[in-house]
Amino acid sequence: MEPNFNDQTQQQQHHHLVAWAPTAWAQLSAVRHQSPLIQCITNYVSMDLVANTLLSAGASPAMLHSAEEIPDFTPHVHALYINVGTLSPDWLPAMKIAAELASNSGKPWVLDPVAAGASGFRLKACLELVGLKPTVVRGNASEIIALSNASVGPTKGVDSSHESMDAVDAAKRLAEASGSIVAVSGAVDIITDGKRVVAVHNGVPMMQKITATGCAVTALIAAFVAVDPLHAFEATASALSVFGIAGEMGMDVANGPASLRMQMIDSLYGIDQAAVLSHVHIKSLP
Amino acid sequence: MEPNFNDQTQQQQHHHLVAWAPTAWAQLSAVRHQSPLIQCITNYVSMDLVANTLLSAGASPAMLHSAEEIPDFTPHVHALYINVGTLSPDWLPAMKIAAELASNSGKPWVLDPVAAGASGFRLKACLELVGLKPTVVRGNASEIIALSNASVGPTKGVDSSHESMDAVDAAKRLAEASGSIVAVSGAVDIITDGKRVVAVHNGVPMMQKITATGCAVTALIAAFVAVDPLHAFEATASALSVFGIAGEMGMDVANGPASLRMQMIDSLYGIDQAAVLSHVHIKSLP
Amino acid sequence: MEPNFNDQTQQQQHHHLVAWAPTAWAQLSAVRHQSPLIQCITNYVSMDLVANTLLSAGASPAMLHSAEEIPDFTPHVHALYINVGTLSPDWLPAMKIAAELASNSGKPWVLDPVAAGASGFRLKACLELVGLKPTVVRGNASEIIALSNASVGPTKGVDSSHESMDAVDAAKRLAEASGSIVAVSGAVDIITDGKRVVAVHNGVPMMQKITATGCAVTALIAAFVAVDPLHAFEATASALSVFGIAGEMGMDVANGPASLRMQMIDSLYGIDQAAVLSHVHIKSLP
Repeated sequence: MEPNFNDQTQQQQHHHLVAWAPTAWAQLSAVRHQSPLIQCITNYVSMDLVANTLLSAGASPAMLHSAEEIPDFTPHVHALYINVGTLSPDWLPAMKIAAELASNSGKPWVLDPVAAGASGFRLKACLELVGLKPTVVRGNASEIIALSNASVGPTKGVDSSHESMDAVDAAKRLAEASGSIVAVSGAVDIITDGKRVVAVHNGVPMMQKITATGCAVTALIAAFVAVDPLHAFEATASALSVFGIAGEMGMDVANGPASLRMQMIDSLYGIDQAAVLSHVHIKSLP
Repeated sequence: MEPNFNDQTQQQQHHHLVAWAPTAWAQLSAVRHQSPLIQCITNYVSMDLVANTLLSAGASPAMLHSAEEIPDFTPHVHALYINVGTLSPDWLPAMKIAAELASNSGKPWVLDPVAAGASGFRLKACLELVGLKPTVVRGNASEIIALSNASVGPTKGVDSSHESMDAVDAAKRLAEASGSIVAVSGAVDIITDGKRVVAVHNGVPMMQKITATGCAVTALIAAFVAVDPLHAFEATASALSVFGIAGEMGMDVANGPASLRMQMIDSLYGIDQAAVLSHVHIKSLP
Repeated sequence: MEPNFNDQTQQQQHHHLVAWAPTAWAQLSAVRHQSPLIQCITNYVSMDLVANTLLSAGASPAMLHSAEEIPDFTPHVHALYINVGTLSPDWLPAMKIAAELASNSGKPWVLDPVAAGASGFRLKACLELVGLKPTVVRGNASEIIALSNASVGPTKGVDSSHESMDAVDAAKRLAEASGSIVAVSGAVDIITDGKRVVAVHNGVPMMQKITATGCAVTALIAAFVAVDPLHAFEATASALSVFGIAGEMGMDVANGPASLRMQMIDSLYGIDQAAVLSHVHIKSLP
C-alpha cells in the first residue's frame, strides 16, 4: 500500500505535504485488507477494548506477554504494542525482550507510557523502553512531559494534569532525543517527529470517560504503522483521526459513556470512505 | 462538601438521623466536582467495569498494584480500593503494603473480600486485610458470615448462598470487632457500623447476572468515602443506593444483562438531582 | 436431567442418534435450573466475556487460578474450564493441579488451547494439559491441527489459518489419542469423539470480530457438560449451537461487533424453547 500523496497541485509544494484524508482512508483500507498481526503486551484493564478495537479495524490482535514465547512468536508479527498500564516487575523483562527483538529486526513497535510519572519504578521502566527505540510513543500531556523531563511528577493517575498543547515542546524534545514519532493525545492530538508538528482535531470529550480509549488508539496506531511502516508519522495521525471520527459518529447516537464505547467500536467497523474523507481534521502546525 | 443533614424537624431528633436522599445527591455531586483519585487493586475480571463505573460517576480510577510503586503513588490518592477476587500470593503483599500505608495516613480504604470463605488461603488473606482497618468492608452475605466467623464455608463461588438479612448479626459483630463500616449487599443492602443498621432498597435482580457489579459498587463506595471521609457510613449507603438507582433506570430500557450493563453505566453518568431525590430508598433498621 | 433421546422412529435407528434440538433445549434448561459452579482459569482478555456468558446462560462462574486455593475450591465445582490464552510459566502449574484434581475425581473439565502452535513453550503446555484427559478440547482449526501434529506452525495469532473442515481428520486423531471430545470451531463447527462427527451450522461471521467469543463458547461447553456429564459429546454440540443461535438472534438487531456482543449476551439470557427448537442446526457427518 502506498499512502495517497498528492503533490501535484500548486497549493501543495512541500514534499512532506500530505493529503491527510485520502491517506487516512488508504491506511485504514490497508489494515482491513492485510489484517496485520499485532502483538499486544498491554495492561489488564485495556485488554478487552484493545482487542476489540483492533478486530473492528480489521487487524488481528494477539495478547502474548510471556518471555518464554516471545522469541518464537514476535518474529512473525507485523507490529508490537507495549503498554505499561498495570506494570509489575515480572512483566517488564518480557516487554524489553520483545521491544529489543522488534527494534533489531526493523519491525515497528509502539509504546504507551501510561502514568509514566506516577512512580520512580515506572518512570525508569518507561525510559528504558524509550531507549529501545519505539517507532511511536503515544501518551497524554503529563506522560510525555514526565518522559521528556525524565521526572516523576504530579499525576492524576491515568488522567492528564496538562493540556496537549502544553506538551508540544516536550514532545519535540522527546522525539529528537529518542528518534520516535511522539503523539500527545488530548482535546487536540499533537503528533511530531521533532521537526514536523500536526494537530488532529477529531474525537469528542466523552471518550475520556471510557477507560482504555488511550490504550485502544495506541494499539490502532500500531496497526496503521504495521501496514505503512515507511510513513509512521502519517499513520500515527491517521489512526488518531480515524479513532476520533469513530467517536464522533458514535456520539451522534450515544446516551453516555457505555453506549459511546459500543457505538464507537461499531462505527470503527463500519466507517466508509465518504465518512473518512469528510471527517478527517488534521492540520500542520508552524 | 458537607452532607445535607436536616435535624430541624420534630420527626428527626436523633443527631445521627440523615436525610438520605439529599445526602446521596450531595456526595455524588462532590465526586463529580472533586474527581477523587481512587487507586484500585482489584481482580482481573472486574477491572473494566470498575474503571468505567468510577469514570461515569466522575471519579478518576488508577489501577496500580505493584509493591514497587505503592510508596510513591498511594500517598497521592484520595482513597484505596482492594478486591481479592483473583487473588494470588504474588499480589497479596502489595495489597497489605497499600492498606497499611492508607491506614497509617488516615486515608480511607475499602475492602471487597470476594469469596472470602472459598479457601483457607483466601480467608486468611481477607482476615489479615480486615486487620489493617479498612474504612469499609462490602461483601455478600456468605462473605460477611465467613469473615465474621473466620471460617471457610460452603460457597457458590462469588455468588452468595445466604440472603443479606441473614447476615445482619454477623455484620454487626464484624463491624464491632474491626472498627469498619460493614455492608452486606443483596436484594436489600445492609450497612452497619456495629450500632446503627440501615437497609438500602435500590437495585434490580438482573444486576446479579452481570459480572463484577459487586466489585464496581465497592469501588463507588471508595469514591463516595473519598469525598466525605468523616461520614463513611452515610457515604457507603449513598453509593449503594445511587448504584442501585442507576440499575433501576437502566432496567427500564434494558433487554438483558448486557444491555443493562451498558444502560446502568450511562444512567450513572447522567443521573440528575431529581432522579436521585425521588429514587433513594434507605431506611433505618431497629 | 436426561437429554431428550428419541430413538423410536424408523429414521432414527442408530442408538447414538440424538434429537439435537430438544437435547440442546434440555441441557440449556438444566444449566438454568442447576446453575452449575464453573471454575475458570482463563486468559485476561476473556474474563469479562466468559463470566458474563456463563451468568447469562444461568451458570455460576468463579475465576480462581491460584495453586494455593485449588485443593480447597476445585472439589466443590461442577466443572473446570482452562484456557491458555495469556499463558505464562507462573499460571501453568495451577492449571495442571486443577486439571489433575478434576480428572482424578471424574469431574468434567474443558480445555481451550488458544494459539497452541504459537510457540514451543505453549505447544508443550497444551500437550501436557491434553495429557491430563480433558473431557472436551475446543479450538479453531489451526489449534487442533497443531495439537494433533504436536507441531509449532504458522499462526495468525488467535485467528485460524485453516477452515474447520480441513481439521476433521486431525480432530478425529486427537480425539482418539486423547480420549477427549474434540470440537473445531469455525464457520461450521465440527465435534468428534473419534468415531462420530457432527457439524454445527449456527452462528454468524461477525462473531469472529468480537474478542474472546471462542473462549466464551468453550466456557459454555463446560457449563453444558457440567449438567450432563454422561453426554459430553451432545453437550458440546448443544453449547456451540445455542451460542451460535444467540449470535444469530443478536445479529438481527446489531450494527457492528460491539452491539453484536451485547445483543448476543442478551439473547443467550432470554432465548426460549421455541427459538432453540427452530434454530438448532446440527448434522451428523458420514
